[in-house]
Amino acid sequence: MARALRQGCADGDVVEKIIGYGRDKVHLQQALDLGVIDSYELDIGRAVANADLILLAVPVAAMEDVFTEIRPHLAADAIITDVGSAKVAVIEAARHGLGERLSSFIPGHPIAGTEQSGVVASFAELFENRRVILTPLPENTAATVNRVRELWTLCGAEVVEMAAAHHDEVLAATSHLPHLLAYSLVDLLAGLDDSEDIFTYAAGGFRDFTRIASSDPVMWRDICLANREAVLVLLDQFSKGIDKLGDAIRDGNGEQLMEVFSRAKEVRDRIK
Amino acid sequence: MARALRQGCADGDVVEKIIGYGRDKVHLQQALDLGVIDSYELDIGRAVANADLILLAVPVAAMEDVFTEIRPHLAADAIITDVGSAKVAVIEAARHGLGERLSSFIPGHPIAGTEQSGVVASFAELFENRRVILTPLPENTAATVNRVRELWTLCGAEVVEMAAAHHDEVLAATSHLPHLLAYSLVDLLAGLDDSEDIFTYAAGGFRDFTRIASSDPVMWRDICLANREAVLVLLDQFSKGIDKLGDAIRDGNGEQLMEVFSRAKEVRDRIK
Repeated sequence: MARALRQGCADGDVVEKIIGYGRDKVHLQQALDLGVIDSYELDIGRAVANADLILLAVPVAAMEDVFTEIRPHLAADAIITDVGSAKVAVIEAARHGLGERLSSFIPGHPIAGTEQSGVVASFAELFENRRVILTPLPENTAATVNRVRELWTLCGAEVVEMAAAHHDEVLAATSHLPHLLAYSLVDLLAGLDDSEDIFTYAAGGFRDFTRIASSDPVMWRDICLANREAVLVLLDQFSKGIDKLGDAIRDGNGEQLMEVFSRAKEVRDRIK
Repeated sequence: MARALRQGCADGDVVEKIIGYGRDKVHLQQALDLGVIDSYELDIGRAVANADLILLAVPVAAMEDVFTEIRPHLAADAIITDVGSAKVAVIEAARHGLGERLSSFIPGHPIAGTEQSGVVASFAELFENRRVILTPLPENTAATVNRVRELWTLCGAEVVEMAAAHHDEVLAATSHLPHLLAYSLVDLLAGLDDSEDIFTYAAGGFRDFTRIASSDPVMWRDICLANREAVLVLLDQFSKGIDKLGDAIRDGNGEQLMEVFSRAKEVRDRIK
């Protein structure tokens, strides 16, 4: 977002100064060297003290502690937003951690990313023509929501709003479940006797299918646990689905396979 | 392969004439118009009658009929090869269909492809730096195996040999199971109440993960049934794996999730 805002608008226009905060000085120095941030702080209170906008990009289970730590240091008109992939849990964390400052928090989630982590993997074009979902709270004012909307628009994204619970169901389907399946498949194959051979003969389809298994494990552990209800409903349905496919294969029931495969192809062909 | 051979060597050098055969005249005419073939036949006997090399690229369940149909028309020194993704079943089909001409058949499988079908989707570079697996029969002579090896090498591929049963196990893991999972996921999501919303908010990770669900359903029905034993073993293990992940999520067992996710990431990071 820092890179995108710098590219999307003249410096000093919308973005005056970008301060980085994190646990690892090496990473912060890297961000500084790359020109992504203007300075960094190793004390979270100092980092947020004079900030107009605070963007939280931490694993969702860490959100509550971060909200609690920044709360006493927030400027009166500070706006806080986040990029967590499970919105109900982050809102709950904000209620606990931010208390009377809850209205300053606009929950957000850019539907964009790669399987890579760290500032070196960042690029300004990440959000271009992608969607950012905001799940505003009843406590938010229209002005603060619009401020966050405006910033994401400057990054090239299309901003949409929806209820947090609906966001969590949609993301469980398109993102959380696929990550679980990719991790699970790679883990299964890695444990097979001929796993070396298996990965040697993996082609492009396999590489695409399993790319997301390179994503950050801590981030995904937290998302799966934070959005456990929606994830478990789908995982259970998926498990029943593949068991049925297994039965069809066992019974030599080509018609049933054709039915599932054709329906899936028809739907998938519509997604570019 | 026709495109690749044309590009990989001077016309008339290795490839004198490429004759297309298929059930659909429209597709054959397209191939002719695109310069992929030199002519086509609508009678399979005429198509193979004077051929030095016959490449069978049909769904694996159709192989036996095709072997049976071409057998009486084969030239004395004709070599037959195929691109089927399940080798044990195709070899069995060849035993039945080719009879005394079995020694002319070199089973093969290029580990390359896209989710698209048809001559319009073909391109000469498909096999460059990809592997082609041959699973020669005891009946094959070294000279015929080498002829097929030579042709794939001209296409830019690296040719390796392995036992048919081993091929089927490896491909069940890296290709057949992933296709089943991708089809099954897209079919599941398409059936959800909010499926329109779901696909609207699908990002790059989802698109990569489900790309193979656009593959040809008939081809994949046949592969799943032809390689059912190897596929079922893995599908069963996969099903148990995701049920365990479900239990871990239900129990809030972050350590178990971290273990699986981290192991998978480590292995996946090694695949470029």
